[in-house]
Amino acid sequence: MPNPTAAILVIGDEILSGRTQDTNTHFLAGELTARGIDLLEVRVVSDNKQMIVDALNAMRRSYDTVFTSGGIGPTHDDITADAIAATFRVGIEIRADARAILEARYKEMGTQINAARLRMARIPDGATLIENPVSGAPGFSLNNVHVMAGVPSVFRAMVASVLPTLTGGVPLQSKSVRIDRGEGDIAGPLAELAANFPDLSIGSYPYQHEGVYGASIVIRGGEGERVDAAMARLKTLFPEDQQ
Amino acid sequence: MPNPTAAILVIGDEILSGRTQDTNTHFLAGELTARGIDLLEVRVVSDNKQMIVDALNAMRRSYDTVFTSGGIGPTHDDITADAIAATFRVGIEIRADARAILEARYKEMGTQINAARLRMARIPDGATLIENPVSGAPGFSLNNVHVMAGVPSVFRAMVASVLPTLTGGVPLQSKSVRIDRGEGDIAGPLAELAANFPDLSIGSYPYQHEGVYGASIVIRGGEGERVDAAMARLKTLFPEDQQ
Repeated sequence: MPNPTAAILVIGDEILSGRTQDTNTHFLAGELTARGIDLLEVRVVSDNKQMIVDALNAMRRSYDTVFTSGGIGPTHDDITADAIAATFRVGIEIRADARAILEARYKEMGTQINAARLRMARIPDGATLIENPVSGAPGFSLNNVHVMAGVPSVFRAMVASVLPTLTGGVPLQSKSVRIDRGEGDIAGPLAELAANFPDLSIGSYPYQHEGVYGASIVIRGGEGERVDAAMARLKTLFPEDQQ
Repeated sequence: MPNPTAAILVIGDEILSGRTQDTNTHFLAGELTARGIDLLEVRVVSDNKQMIVDALNAMRRSYDTVFTSGGIGPTHDDITADAIAATFRVGIEIRADARAILEARYKEMGTQINAARLRMARIPDGATLIENPVSGAPGFSLNNVHVMAGVPSVFRAMVASVLPTLTGGVPLQSKSVRIDRGEGDIAGPLAELAANFPDLSIGSYPYQHEGVYGASIVIRGGEGERVDAAMARLKTLFPEDQQ
């Protein structure tokens, strides 16, 4: 059976303007790979409701699971929850359980709850809350879409809440070796190797370090023995250039 | 006249597996913003020809300019040039000018040219070459799509070659201030401010630092005087919490 598939939708003008480097994708990509869930696409769109809805409709139909990052805070530019409700054509309102979480949190902090903070208790109808141990305000899951905050520490905490609920696959086995030869020298033998191991994914990632050209060769596959066999063969091809 | 629009397509399994953090998007986003070109969407797809073609067809029709990153090296997993040819339904073959660039480069380095390296001279019919002062092998532009290498140093050099050929827009004026108050306290007054300055984009980016909650408020717009006016108003709202 093929592995489950996933996609990530990152929402936020600050990524597209170059103000902020998105790191949530890189983090979640590693977590999914470790669980045998194949991340097949990422999109970044701005804080624009129609663009969010269009991207979500394309992605939720193409992949088993979709994660979103960003746009669920208390300010006027946080429109993700409304976009999710529009995507699934459901209502959205302040929900008692989400409100209770916020009230308890703010009481603990000695902070007043207000209309802006209550916006974070607005949850689309039918959704399940995602726990946020870092800052209280929950994310939520609706069908196959998991809606999480963009602040990296909160995003990671929500990922930790969601991942155990997902069905994983066979984590890819992966081995890599660095070869200090130009990619153009490696490419021919590597293509032959790839043709001989069609069940494996063999990637070449070039680097240049202090004037030395080389490439990291990464061999991935579902069966560790096949990966080992391909790596053994690769090592006989470039016996003197391995790092 | 509205600013020109742009999108970025990042191609590479290594980004989706979590092996590599994409930094090209962040770099190019900043460059585009500085030139008044609005980056509206980013997608990341794997080294899969059909996925590349589908993404490119959607993006090249929706935005004035599309940039791609990755997949134009000499190895078997470098399939971007073929995907571009398929997207535009044109032929692709080794082109004399691209081959001459590679031959001169390898001669200078004392490296043999071979079949794998010649793959990098395969250019879709009708394309214009993009200069690569870092490692020789050129990128190319076809209609509104600019195809560049994924290695960050080469990507940046190619961006430097392409940007002067593009029509820019009005660079957004931007001012920001840090306010050491929880976003929930800021949100109400900020929404009013945003309503009073509908021509500006006002973003709130929360942070938590050593137990202090705050938010960076960024005000952007085409006219510097309007940005200054909104910032002056904002500063009167939270006189004691600005950093």
